[in-house]
Amino acid sequence: ELVERVCALYQNDKLSGQHWVITAGPTREAIDPVRYISNHSSGKMGFSLAQAAQQAGANVTLIAGPVHLNTPQSVKRIDVESAEQMHKQALTYANEATVFISCAAVADYRVAQIADHKIKKTDDNQEMQIKLVKNPDIVADVAQLTNKPYTVGFAAETQNIEQYALDKLKRKNLDLIAANNVATSGQGFNSDNNALTVYSTNNKFDIDLADKSLVAQQLVALIAEQLD
Amino acid sequence: ELVERVCALYQNDKLSGQHWVITAGPTREAIDPVRYISNHSSGKMGFSLAQAAQQAGANVTLIAGPVHLNTPQSVKRIDVESAEQMHKQALTYANEATVFISCAAVADYRVAQIADHKIKKTDDNQEMQIKLVKNPDIVADVAQLTNKPYTVGFAAETQNIEQYALDKLKRKNLDLIAANNVATSGQGFNSDNNALTVYSTNNKFDIDLADKSLVAQQLVALIAEQLD
Repeated sequence: ELVERVCALYQNDKLSGQHWVITAGPTREAIDPVRYISNHSSGKMGFSLAQAAQQAGANVTLIAGPVHLNTPQSVKRIDVESAEQMHKQALTYANEATVFISCAAVADYRVAQIADHKIKKTDDNQEMQIKLVKNPDIVADVAQLTNKPYTVGFAAETQNIEQYALDKLKRKNLDLIAANNVATSGQGFNSDNNALTVYSTNNKFDIDLADKSLVAQQLVALIAEQLD
Repeated sequence: ELVERVCALYQNDKLSGQHWVITAGPTREAIDPVRYISNHSSGKMGFSLAQAAQQAGANVTLIAGPVHLNTPQSVKRIDVESAEQMHKQALTYANEATVFISCAAVADYRVAQIADHKIKKTDDNQEMQIKLVKNPDIVADVAQLTNKPYTVGFAAETQNIEQYALDKLKRKNLDLIAANNVATSGQGFNSDNNALTVYSTNNKFDIDLADKSLVAQQLVALIAEQLD
């Protein structure tokens, strides 16, 4: 069924005239000039989504954290490091978008006080505390825009996946949420494959384990269908 | 002068029969299954040193943190993630080594309690604390081995470089320390170029700004000369 949707999408250049904004990759939160907090996101899922949407005719802006990936053809790429930088770019571009997909693994917290110089280890300091403060919630803020695009979130969880996903969908005013289990080896973070369960308020769709580029095509097709 | 040393080194296969152990790249200290603390080391300097030592005839073991680099030809590569993993491998291999070069940017601290599941952001937690504990000191422990190899450290500093380097040389019982200023753009972390000031107890050597592969050849030549 989804395969037919994917074919229909690419045969008809269905997304022509639409602007899709997609975030991808991790963010990095500086501790000092050399250290940072980050996560295992490779960016592959978001980059695959950007490519799939572009190939279906959309005008795509890809806001990317630090990753080792080539920019998909004809996609506009904006590179950022921190969650705050990503937040700023996302709100700017989402404001005029048809669809916003928050695929990046954004750091929930940043370091409260970034040190100007490398923090020295001393013999006295057997322990150290890092104080973190909450980052702005990018996808929730996009979903509050007056010109709200069709807003899609991701939930990368290691437990209670459906419960967290549905709660996030509702709480953040999302239109769709794609959940994956990052604790399952062979899918998700840093893997070439992924499997998703996608929830809207009233529906649930399964996208089976496959190469991320195929999973991306199916998710893009699903979003396009929901937009109709 | 150094150029001559480099030529002599490569013409004579001078390091034949020697075992050089080199650490490279950052380490990653897990916070939970998806988040970690790391640093901006690309691993290029350590990988260049491994290649240079191998090309001069040495048998080279390269203990590498998570990097996006190809293994130099004929070099034995051991991949690790955390400082504790690197410590274990380094002590095992250094115990039978002629030279040990600690080029990795090892995390000084690790997270005291790694969470089994992804730490959830809640509305209550506007702030969060991460408690860190000190990691074992790899290069200092190598320099305490009964079969101590010729031990070379690196000092990546953003200020008071000479003072920190000399202090580290003495305190950790090193034979040589290579200092670079990671705050200077165009060299060091994540750059293709580097410039080093190398200190022994009684001497100081400058290796001018150049591609890391050239800097590596000069440092390998310098170490070989000190061994004589």
